[in-house]
Amino acid sequence: MTARPADPVLSALTLEQKAALTSGADFWHTEAVPAAGVPSALVADGPHGLRKQPEDGDHLGLGNSIPATCFPPAVALACSWDPALVRRVGAALGAEAASERVSVLLGPGVNIKRSPLCGRNFEYYSEDPFLTGRLGAAFVDGVQSRGVGTSLKHFAANNQETDRMRVSAEVDERTLREIYLAAFEHVVTTAKPTTVMSAYNKLNGVYATEHSRLLTEILRGEWGFDGAVVSDWGAVADRVASLAGGTDLQMPPDGSDDDVVAAVRAGRLDEAVLDQAVRRLLGVLERTARGRAGGAAEYDRDAHHALAHEAALSGAVLLKNADGVLPLAEQGPGRIAVIGEFARTPRYQGAGSSQVVPTRLDDALAAVERIAGADRIVFEPGFRLDGVPDAGLVADAVRCAAACETAVLFLGLPAAFESEGFDRADILLPADQQALLAAVHAANPRTVVVLSNGGVVSVADWESHAAAVLEGWLLGQAGGSALADLLFGRANPAGHLTETIPLRLQDVPSYLHFPGGEGQVVYGEGVFVGYRGYDTAQQDVAYPFGHGLSYTEFDLSALNLAETGPNRFTATFTVTNTGPVAGAVVPQVYVHDVVASVARPEQELKGFARVHLAPGESTVVRVGLDERAFAYWSTREDRWKVEAGIAEIRVGLSSRDVRLREQVRLPGDGIGPVLDASSTLDEWLDDGIAAAVLDAAGGPGLKAVLAGMSPGMRRAVGAMPMRALAVFGLGFTGDSLPRLLDAYTEARNLA
Amino acid sequence: MTARPADPVLSALTLEQKAALTSGADFWHTEAVPAAGVPSALVADGPHGLRKQPEDGDHLGLGNSIPATCFPPAVALACSWDPALVRRVGAALGAEAASERVSVLLGPGVNIKRSPLCGRNFEYYSEDPFLTGRLGAAFVDGVQSRGVGTSLKHFAANNQETDRMRVSAEVDERTLREIYLAAFEHVVTTAKPTTVMSAYNKLNGVYATEHSRLLTEILRGEWGFDGAVVSDWGAVADRVASLAGGTDLQMPPDGSDDDVVAAVRAGRLDEAVLDQAVRRLLGVLERTARGRAGGAAEYDRDAHHALAHEAALSGAVLLKNADGVLPLAEQGPGRIAVIGEFARTPRYQGAGSSQVVPTRLDDALAAVERIAGADRIVFEPGFRLDGVPDAGLVADAVRCAAACETAVLFLGLPAAFESEGFDRADILLPADQQALLAAVHAANPRTVVVLSNGGVVSVADWESHAAAVLEGWLLGQAGGSALADLLFGRANPAGHLTETIPLRLQDVPSYLHFPGGEGQVVYGEGVFVGYRGYDTAQQDVAYPFGHGLSYTEFDLSALNLAETGPNRFTATFTVTNTGPVAGAVVPQVYVHDVVASVARPEQELKGFARVHLAPGESTVVRVGLDERAFAYWSTREDRWKVEAGIAEIRVGLSSRDVRLREQVRLPGDGIGPVLDASSTLDEWLDDGIAAAVLDAAGGPGLKAVLAGMSPGMRRAVGAMPMRALAVFGLGFTGDSLPRLLDAYTEARNLA
Repeated sequence: MTARPADPVLSALTLEQKAALTSGADFWHTEAVPAAGVPSALVADGPHGLRKQPEDGDHLGLGNSIPATCFPPAVALACSWDPALVRRVGAALGAEAASERVSVLLGPGVNIKRSPLCGRNFEYYSEDPFLTGRLGAAFVDGVQSRGVGTSLKHFAANNQETDRMRVSAEVDERTLREIYLAAFEHVVTTAKPTTVMSAYNKLNGVYATEHSRLLTEILRGEWGFDGAVVSDWGAVADRVASLAGGTDLQMPPDGSDDDVVAAVRAGRLDEAVLDQAVRRLLGVLERTARGRAGGAAEYDRDAHHALAHEAALSGAVLLKNADGVLPLAEQGPGRIAVIGEFARTPRYQGAGSSQVVPTRLDDALAAVERIAGADRIVFEPGFRLDGVPDAGLVADAVRCAAACETAVLFLGLPAAFESEGFDRADILLPADQQALLAAVHAANPRTVVVLSNGGVVSVADWESHAAAVLEGWLLGQAGGSALADLLFGRANPAGHLTETIPLRLQDVPSYLHFPGGEGQVVYGEGVFVGYRGYDTAQQDVAYPFGHGLSYTEFDLSALNLAETGPNRFTATFTVTNTGPVAGAVVPQVYVHDVVASVARPEQELKGFARVHLAPGESTVVRVGLDERAFAYWSTREDRWKVEAGIAEIRVGLSSRDVRLREQVRLPGDGIGPVLDASSTLDEWLDDGIAAAVLDAAGGPGLKAVLAGMSPGMRRAVGAMPMRALAVFGLGFTGDSLPRLLDAYTEARNLA
Repeated sequence: MTARPADPVLSALTLEQKAALTSGADFWHTEAVPAAGVPSALVADGPHGLRKQPEDGDHLGLGNSIPATCFPPAVALACSWDPALVRRVGAALGAEAASERVSVLLGPGVNIKRSPLCGRNFEYYSEDPFLTGRLGAAFVDGVQSRGVGTSLKHFAANNQETDRMRVSAEVDERTLREIYLAAFEHVVTTAKPTTVMSAYNKLNGVYATEHSRLLTEILRGEWGFDGAVVSDWGAVADRVASLAGGTDLQMPPDGSDDDVVAAVRAGRLDEAVLDQAVRRLLGVLERTARGRAGGAAEYDRDAHHALAHEAALSGAVLLKNADGVLPLAEQGPGRIAVIGEFARTPRYQGAGSSQVVPTRLDDALAAVERIAGADRIVFEPGFRLDGVPDAGLVADAVRCAAACETAVLFLGLPAAFESEGFDRADILLPADQQALLAAVHAANPRTVVVLSNGGVVSVADWESHAAAVLEGWLLGQAGGSALADLLFGRANPAGHLTETIPLRLQDVPSYLHFPGGEGQVVYGEGVFVGYRGYDTAQQDVAYPFGHGLSYTEFDLSALNLAETGPNRFTATFTVTNTGPVAGAVVPQVYVHDVVASVARPEQELKGFARVHLAPGESTVVRVGLDERAFAYWSTREDRWKVEAGIAEIRVGLSSRDVRLREQVRLPGDGIGPVLDASSTLDEWLDDGIAAAVLDAAGGPGLKAVLAGMSPGMRRAVGAMPMRALAVFGLGFTGDSLPRLLDAYTEARNLA
C-alpha cells in the first residue's frame, strides 16, 4: 500500500478516523485506514539493535524479540568520536529494520548525561551537547539512508529515571538552550529525523507531550521540524492537551480517541490541530514507504557482526597503562590469568526498552584463548554476578594470578545495578570486586582491569591496584572479541571519554540537585554540566572528558586560525603519530571566552576530528568554527549572542590536556542594547552615543564629581541606574533625566 | 507633636497630602502635615552605630556624621552567638538614636551570606538563617526597647552588590522560604520591627519594592507584619507600582508625588492602597513617638564604649592556636614584635551607608603596650595600606621579629578591598601581606596572626606560617583594646564562626552562580548555602561553621531528648569546662533528616546556647526543638511540612565537630497527599486506604505479576503512574481506573 498525498487523503477521512490515526492501533503499530489509502506502520525500539517483538510478547523488555545485531550501545559507540562510523552503524540498523518491515526505529537518544547516576546513561552519548549532536545526526542520517524513519528522543530534559513519568525538570532558559536542547537542535536542523519523541517528564511544570513552546514554537517554529512528534510509550497524561501542545501520535493507544472527537465537537480542540497532526503523520508514512516495503530485504549477519566488532574496537577507552603493561604478548611463555565472571558471561548491553536478542555473542575468554592459545590462559570467575561474596572464588583467583605472569580482571557492574527505569544511588564498583582486585594485585602487580559498565564507575578507590585499566563500557555482541584484540594490540585503543570520570560522586556538578523530590528536579548547576563544571571550578577529576590512551603517541603542532568571516574561523593544526605503531586519535577543539557578560564555562567543545595515522605520519586537521562556537544564549535578548571580545581557541587530547592555544579577536554580532533610565551610569559612559549626550548635558560637572571619588565609590556609583543617580544628587536631576533620554533616542536614531 | 489616631488624621488629609506622606521630605526626613498633626520623623543609618548626618552633608557615606559609638559590625557581633549581648548593643544604639531624636534606625541587615565575595557581608550576620533570625530579633528588641523604630533590611534576596539596583535574584520557592526569608520571618513574627526595608534588587523578575507577593501576601498576610515598608534609598523604580506592591514610603523623594495623585485620579491606583500606606506610616509615628521626644536624652559614652569593648571581646574568633602560643605572657623577659599597619591604624568598620564617626578609637598597639609595657614591644608597620610592595618595610619587620620572642602580625583587608557598592573578586589575603608573613615566620616561628577583614579571607595559602590565628573581623571602636586583652588572656576567646572559611573560593556552593550577569543571578545552589553545601557534599573546608577555640577545654555529655508534643522535643545536655581557666562556649544543636522526600542539607542548625563556665564547672543546657526544627518547605504542598520518619539530633562545637547524637522518631504532621491517577503504583501500595482498594479491585493478579519481576523491573513499574500502568497491560485496564479512583475517594471519605 502506498500513501497518497496528504491533503486529498485528509479530506477523505472522518473526524473519528482522524482521531484514530493520532493514536496507535496497538503497542507497535499505527492505525491504518485502508479505504483512504492510509497504511499501518510498524515502529520498533532499537538505538543499538532492532527490538522487534513478536505479536504475543509483553511490552516491558522482558520478552524475547526477533534476533538482531546488537551494536555497542551509545555509551560505547560515542567514545569513538567518529560520526562516519556512527553513520555506518545507523545504516546497518536501518537495513535490519527494513528487512523486518519496520517503518520507524525509535532512536537515537540524545539526552545529556547530567549525572552519572542516571540509569539510562548507557543509551546516551555524552555530557556534551556538541558531540552528542554530531553523533546523533550521523545516526539519523545512517538509518534514514535505508528508507527507515527515526525518532529523536527523549525531547526534552529527560535526564533521569527517578519519577521520570511525572517529574518536572526545572531548567532556566539559557541552560535549556545551551545544554539540553542544543543536540536536538543540531540533529533536527541538519539530519531531519522523521519523528521526534516527546518525553515522559514535565519541563518547567508542563508535560513534554503538551509543551507547545517546546514542540511548536521551538522545534517547529525555530528549527523548522516538519516531521511528526510521537509520544514516549505511555507518556500522554491528557490526550487532547497533548494534541494541542504538538504531540501528533500517542503511543500506545489508551482508548482516548473518543475524547478527541468529543473535544473537537465541543470546540475544546480546533479540528485544524487534528488535521495538522494527521498531515504530519501521513508525511512520515510517505518518507518511510521504502523501509516499509522491505527495503534491502535480508541483511548480511556476518558483515553486521563485523561492523559491531569494529565499533566495539573504536569505543573502548584505555584509561591507564602504567609501564606499558599493555598490549599483552600474543606468544608465551608467561601464562595469563583471566579472572572475572564477565570474561565468560559478557555484560554487553543495558536493560529496558533497548534490550536486543543478539544474532550471536562473543565472549572475551574464548577470544583471548584463540589469540594466545588455550594452554596459556587460566580462567577463574573470581566473583558472583549476584554480588554474594565468595571467599573460595577469591582464593582461587589469587592462586591463579600468583601462578601467572599477568592477571586480566574483567570487572564491572552486574546487570541488576543499572537499567532503564531507575537510577543508581552510587558510582562505586561493587565492594566484592574491589576486594578481589586488591587481593589479586597483592599476588601479582601485573594486573590489568577491563571494565564492563553502562554508567560511569569511580576508580579512585581501587585503581592503584591496576597497572592498566581498559574501560569497555557495554560493547555489544562483538565486545568480547574486540576487548581481546585490544588487549593483545591487534587493534590499538582509540576511544576517548565522552563523560568525565569524577573522583567522587559528591564532586558531580549536579550532585546536590539529583534526582530532586516532590515531583521536581531543579537543574541548579545550570550550564555547568560535566567538564563545564569541573573545569570551571578547577576540581580534580579521575579522568577528564576527552581522555583516552593509545599504544602509540601523538603530537599536536602548528595551530593556525584563519578568519573566514565575522566571528568565523578555520582552525588548522598538525597531528603526528610519533610512536611505534599505527593508531587513531581524537584532537579536540575547545573555545574559552576570556571576558563575558555572563558566567561561562571555562571552555566548551566546539570541534573535533578522528585521525588515523601510521607511525611517523602527519596530517593537517581543519576544524571550522562558526558564530555558534562563540555564542551563548542571552536570556535578556532571547537569542544566541556573540559578544565583541577575545576568545581563546584550545586544541588538546582532553579537556585537561590542552596542547595548543591561540587567541582571536571577535567583532561580536554588533547588536548592542538600547539604553534607558534603568541603564547604569557606566553603561551610558561606555556607549559612544550615550556618552556624547551625557557630556553635552552637563558632563563636566559629573566628571569632576566622579574624578573626586575613591575607586570603591566610583565603582558603586558607576553601577547605579541613571534613575537612581538623580536622587543621590549626582550631576543632574530627576527632571533632566527625561530630556537626557530624549536626546539619546534622537542621537541613536540619527546614528 | 504627638500623632493622633490614624483614621481621624487620614480623613483630614487631602489626596496630595497623602501622596506626599508616602515619600520623604528630604534625604532623611519624612513629610509632616502640621495642620493634621502629622509630625516629621528623622531616620538614620546605623546597624552598628548611629550615622546621623548634618543637614548639609552629602548622602553617600563620604561625609562626616555626628560622633556615635561604633559597635562591632554584624560580622563580628554575630560571632558572639549571644542574643542577650546583641540586645544590649541594640538598646545602646536605641539610646544614642533617641538622644539625637532619630525615630527609626535603619537596621538590622539580616541578609544571608550567600557568597564570601559580597561586599556588604560585614553588615550581615551569618550564612545560616536560624542564627541570623535569633540575632536580628534581639537587635530589634533592643533598639525598640528605647522607643526607637527599626528597619529590617534588605527584604529580600539582596545578597550581592554587583548590579544590586537592577539584578533579579532567581530563587526557587523552597530556597526562598528556607534560606532567604526565614530570618526575616523570625524577626517579624517575634520582635515586630516597626518597618521593613524593601530591597534594591528584583526577586524572580519583579522589583522587591513592587513585589506584592513578598510585601503583601507573605510579609503581611502570612507573618502578620503591621508596620510600614520603606524603600531602600533610591530603590523605587516606579512609584505607583511600588505603592501598589506594598512599599508604603519611598526614600528619598524623587518628585513623583504628582504621579501618585494622577494615578489615583485616573483610577490606576486604588486610593485605598494609598490610605493603607498612610495609615501604616501613622502607626510607625505613634510607635516611635518616645524616641522622637528625645528618649533618655544624653547617653553615657564611656559605658557605651565599654559595651563596644565587651562585644568586641565576644566576637573575635580564635581559629588556630598551635602549641598554646597564645595567650602571650604579660610579663617579660621576652620581647614582642608587633607587626602590621593595622596594629596602629585599626580597620574597625566597613565602608558605605553604615560608616560611623566613632566617639573614640582604640588601637591594638597602644593597648598591647599598656598591658605588656612599652619597652617589651617593638612595632614595625610591615606593609603599606595602599598595597604597594615595600621591601624595606618587610626587611625591618623580619629583623624585628628575629630579635623578639614572639611576633604578632596584624594583617587583613585594606579598606579599599571591600565596601557596600561592589563585590570582591577573590577571597585572598593580599599577596604583599602573605609574603611578609612568610618572611617573618621564617625568622621566628612563634608567629601569631591577627586578622582584620569584613568578608572572609582564605587561610589555606598561608596559615602554615602562623602558629596561631585570631580572626578579629571588624571589631568597632574598641576592637584594638579587645584584641590586646584576648592576646594576653585577660579575656578568653569565645567567638564562633557564623560562616564557613572554605579552602578555596571555587569550593563555595554559589561559586558558579555568583554574581550572575545580564541582570540575573540564578541561585542555582538552592538551599545548599554555606555549611549546608559543604557538609552535604562532604567537601573539606579550612574552618567549619561554628568553629572557635578557647584557652580552656569543654566537654559535652549526657544528651537527652524529651518529647514535649508531636514533633517537639527538648534536648538537654551537660557542658563542662574541663580546662584551666574560665571561658564561654557555644554548643550548637543540628538536626539531620535521615530519610526525606526532597534533598535536604546534611544538617541544619536548630538551636544553640552561649555558656560561661568557671574551670571545672558544669551546667545543663536545655534547647527546645519545635516542629519547624524538622520541617522543610514543601513546594508541592506550598507549606512547611514535617514528614514522618527519623531525625538525628546532633550537638557539637562546630558543624564538623559533633560530640553527641541521638535519633528520634517523628510522627510527621499527618497530612498525607490525596492520590490520583498520576500517583504511582508504589504510592498506592504504600497508602493504607489505596492499597485496600487496589487489593479489592483485583490485587491478586497484580501481586502475582509484581512478584514475578526482577528487582529492577519491580522498581521501574512501582514508579509508574497508575494512568500509565494500564497501557502496559499490568493488572487492570484503562477502563477500570476511573472505578478504582471512585472507590478510593469513597474509602477516603469514610476514613
